[in-house]
Amino acid sequence: MTSIFKVSAADAEIAADSVKFDDKGLALALACDHPSGEILMAAWMNRETLIQTLVTGRMTYWSRSRKEIWVKGLTSGHVQDVIGVELDCDGDALRFRVVQHGHAACHTNRFSCFYRTLDGAKWTATSHPRSSD
Amino acid sequence: MTSIFKVSAADAEIAADSVKFDDKGLALALACDHPSGEILMAAWMNRETLIQTLVTGRMTYWSRSRKEIWVKGLTSGHVQDVIGVELDCDGDALRFRVVQHGHAACHTNRFSCFYRTLDGAKWTATSHPRSSD
Repeated sequence: MTSIFKVSAADAEIAADSVKFDDKGLALALACDHPSGEILMAAWMNRETLIQTLVTGRMTYWSRSRKEIWVKGLTSGHVQDVIGVELDCDGDALRFRVVQHGHAACHTNRFSCFYRTLDGAKWTATSHPRSSD
Repeated sequence: MTSIFKVSAADAEIAADSVKFDDKGLALALACDHPSGEILMAAWMNRETLIQTLVTGRMTYWSRSRKEIWVKGLTSGHVQDVIGVELDCDGDALRFRVVQHGHAACHTNRFSCFYRTLDGAKWTATSHPRSSD
């Protein structure tokens, strides 16, 4: 069984000190499916939501459009449990390995947000929304 | 054999019209290893370098630090050949499937830039630089 990755609030504060947030206070957060590694979505975290993610083990972003804390899947049920996290060489991007509930990270009800494939000049949807159940 | 993905300059212009560049003229470009899917690095493209990437089939970023066109691997030989590309639901992030030459995307000579894994409060390097050959 895969266990959820969590740390203490004190450890999360120390871990966040190594992350370089940009001039808007944000770092890139990439959610990758565990164990396949496929990228599900790219979004952003500020220091507060990074710490909340690390402490709760549940992906929590900063919504740039709504300007609010965004616990992914809170309304849809498509939450993302954290299995592990890596920081990149620049310190400004995080890769989270997650278990995606509901088999849909995208708000279009697709597994991944990266579903439009370039074919010549056209971006073509190459995956289908999952049927509701 | 895996073939390199390229489009005509005219097709690249049309494809770029669907990409939403931010207030700095940039879109997120994620390079993922083909066929494993593992994220190698996260960087940025402006319209010009996106079109150059699509036309040449070789990953070409915009360096935010140097403020210049950055053909990845031009000096190291660690170029990235494009196998395919997907656009996300928001239209502001691109996933490129690439063949990474030299088995090192990171400037630290590691396969992926995401090599520091959180363990408690500490980010620990969990992959080693490849030996030079």
